[in-house]
Amino acid sequence: RTDGARLWQSLMDLARIGATLKGGVCRIALTDLDGQGRDLFVRWAQEAGCSIRVDAIGNIFARRAGADDSLPPVMTGSHIDTQPTGGKFDGNYGVLAGLEVLRTLDAAGVRTRAPLEVAVWTNEEGSRFVPVMMGSGVFCGAFTLEHALDQRDAQGVSVGEALAQIGYAGAAGPAPAVGAYFEAHIEQGPVLENHGRVIGVVTAALGQRWYDVSVQGMEAHAGPTPMELRRDALLAASELVLEINRIATERRPHARSTVGTIEVFPNSRNVIPGRARFSVDLRAPDDAQLLDMDAALRTACARVAAERGLQIDIEQVVYFPPQPFMPQLTEAVRANAEDLGYSHMDVVSGAGHDAVYLARVAPAAMIFVPCADGISHNEVESAEPAHLEAGCNVLLRAMLAAAGV
Amino acid sequence: RTDGARLWQSLMDLARIGATLKGGVCRIALTDLDGQGRDLFVRWAQEAGCSIRVDAIGNIFARRAGADDSLPPVMTGSHIDTQPTGGKFDGNYGVLAGLEVLRTLDAAGVRTRAPLEVAVWTNEEGSRFVPVMMGSGVFCGAFTLEHALDQRDAQGVSVGEALAQIGYAGAAGPAPAVGAYFEAHIEQGPVLENHGRVIGVVTAALGQRWYDVSVQGMEAHAGPTPMELRRDALLAASELVLEINRIATERRPHARSTVGTIEVFPNSRNVIPGRARFSVDLRAPDDAQLLDMDAALRTACARVAAERGLQIDIEQVVYFPPQPFMPQLTEAVRANAEDLGYSHMDVVSGAGHDAVYLARVAPAAMIFVPCADGISHNEVESAEPAHLEAGCNVLLRAMLAAAGV
Ligand SMILES: NC(=O)NCCC(=O)O
Ligand SMILES: NC(=O)NCCC(=O)O
Repeated sequence: RTDGARLWQSLMDLARIGATLKGGVCRIALTDLDGQGRDLFVRWAQEAGCSIRVDAIGNIFARRAGADDSLPPVMTGSHIDTQPTGGKFDGNYGVLAGLEVLRTLDAAGVRTRAPLEVAVWTNEEGSRFVPVMMGSGVFCGAFTLEHALDQRDAQGVSVGEALAQIGYAGAAGPAPAVGAYFEAHIEQGPVLENHGRVIGVVTAALGQRWYDVSVQGMEAHAGPTPMELRRDALLAASELVLEINRIATERRPHARSTVGTIEVFPNSRNVIPGRARFSVDLRAPDDAQLLDMDAALRTACARVAAERGLQIDIEQVVYFPPQPFMPQLTEAVRANAEDLGYSHMDVVSGAGHDAVYLARVAPAAMIFVPCADGISHNEVESAEPAHLEAGCNVLLRAMLAAAGV
Repeated sequence: RTDGARLWQSLMDLARIGATLKGGVCRIALTDLDGQGRDLFVRWAQEAGCSIRVDAIGNIFARRAGADDSLPPVMTGSHIDTQPTGGKFDGNYGVLAGLEVLRTLDAAGVRTRAPLEVAVWTNEEGSRFVPVMMGSGVFCGAFTLEHALDQRDAQGVSVGEALAQIGYAGAAGPAPAVGAYFEAHIEQGPVLENHGRVIGVVTAALGQRWYDVSVQGMEAHAGPTPMELRRDALLAASELVLEINRIATERRPHARSTVGTIEVFPNSRNVIPGRARFSVDLRAPDDAQLLDMDAALRTACARVAAERGLQIDIEQVVYFPPQPFMPQLTEAVRANAEDLGYSHMDVVSGAGHDAVYLARVAPAAMIFVPCADGISHNEVESAEPAHLEAGCNVLLRAMLAAAGV
């Protein structure tokens, strides 16, 4: 059994780096704070006897040798970058649960057959740089290293520059094989809490399509310009925000659609906005449904452009299909939860996770635990120590079974 | 008669300061570029034999002595600050038409009875700092000097600091009396062009109410958060943008409503926006109608807040009632246009102008000339040299009549 108090203490220690006044964490990918968080993880992993490897997209792998080091490692992990309004648990839990598994095995003097690895994946959140789940996406070949390194944030800084800046640009090379991958995570939604269950057995994750939409209208004076002559880019964008919301509400219960960012130009009180730019995030459990939502988005943009005499451009910046997890590993999670006496249920992940990409190259599974009110990507994000410990115990058992003792 | 070519040359020379690639001007109030524009005006006015006075809100007064300097001056002027997407004529025309009047009188050796003054009013545009029409507002007692000096831009810089920075913080003191005030300006709307007229006789200006609206929802994860549990601040703001547009379209032809700025927080692609902040600009020819529009705005905000479970706060940041101009001076503009053989018509100004505040303390009138396609607050803003000269000739005659020769 893992040590829940030690796990909690590590979570609280890591959460000091980038701590916000409202009790959250703002440790955005590849900032100095992200660098400090990485340094702390590396130190802890080395203290636990691990060797450290960093790859060219900045993923960190902490390795605990096995009895047979020619076997591909059994891996776990997640990310430690956060949203601007991030919490203490999203991602951090998966990384530190992995570390807690290693510390528990050390304390118990257990050697596994296959080596174990804890991975810290770069820029999972996708807030500063797209694509989201960048480090695991490169590792699993979802897109190229070069594509990822070239992406720029709103200030024009590239991923490659930011990695070099914090000292986590490692060596390029082919990704090594992975024997199996497990990821523990807070649910980030309300289902477990509503059902009073402790362990979520994650059967699949929603597919996602993200877009940048730009609306080109005509800036003009807010006073003398008659209402009927306007080509107001924000008015068109606002109509689309409502329309995009309907794309998911008409496809409940599992579809999601969100406009998370918007900017208008010139952003002056008495100028009719001439340009607007916003992001769209569409999600669905079924790839055909996701494509149907894509079509609905394009239809809505075309209609509004025609009706309002504006130009609207759509660029897709992220796509991955719905991802089922490996039934054998999912069953192992279920059986271990049952064995340990934890209430559990099957759930579908509404969030993307590094495990979604790992599932393309290795058997993979995820373990969810509840978070308060299902709230995440918010500084008030919170989780019960007992639940975090339970998820960690399931992770320990599942990893041991996969690695062999 | 004034020299249209000289006027045009001065407009082009001033437009070099802050020139944009698209042929416009970005010379935002109290920036270094605004300072350079002011310096150029001051030099030109001194070359024309004027004395210069700067008041505590940074208004510049260039004075040409009269035969009887105990008389209150006959004043003209406008502003040289621009929108971020400003043109070469908005404001600049009124200032340089005034200068051209003085240069014409010098060349003709004419001395007026009352002194003449050309004013450059501070921060007319209201883009960087509210209230709009700030310099003339302080001069005319619409709000206090202290209130104006304390306003801050989005970066937290105050008006007082910015004035000191560019060296235009003059001495405080009571505003001197004004004998009469005329302001020449491009129309910034399509009416004159549509009717094929050269001179707009401005009978009144729309009243305005501006607001900051902030929406407080709840940030949450764009993936796992079910559509029905969201409190999406941008979704609420978008509904309001459409609703606010209807406030004016339902009260055509003269009412206007515009949302020119919007910002959301945390502005991350996969976070449901927890906060949104936007500006509202309402205008009407009748104060009761403007109040009715204010009520419609408040009702819409209250309804959306209740329906979506969000908090919405409204702060009014600008108010001035519709302003009629002095019939005797308006008639002088009309008669001089007629005399000079220029086609003309009566128009209502959809924009606020410094003349709106001056009309509270002196007889005031405005002279409009057409601008291409009625477009202003846009870098493509353009006007015909012949029209600008015509407006300047009307201004010359009207000022001479008011000042006496
Ligand atoms: N787990 C998590 O918050 N991932 C971010 C990617 C997403 O938006 O689904
Ligand atoms: N003339 C002009 O553009 N004034 C700005 C104030 C307004 O928005 O009406």
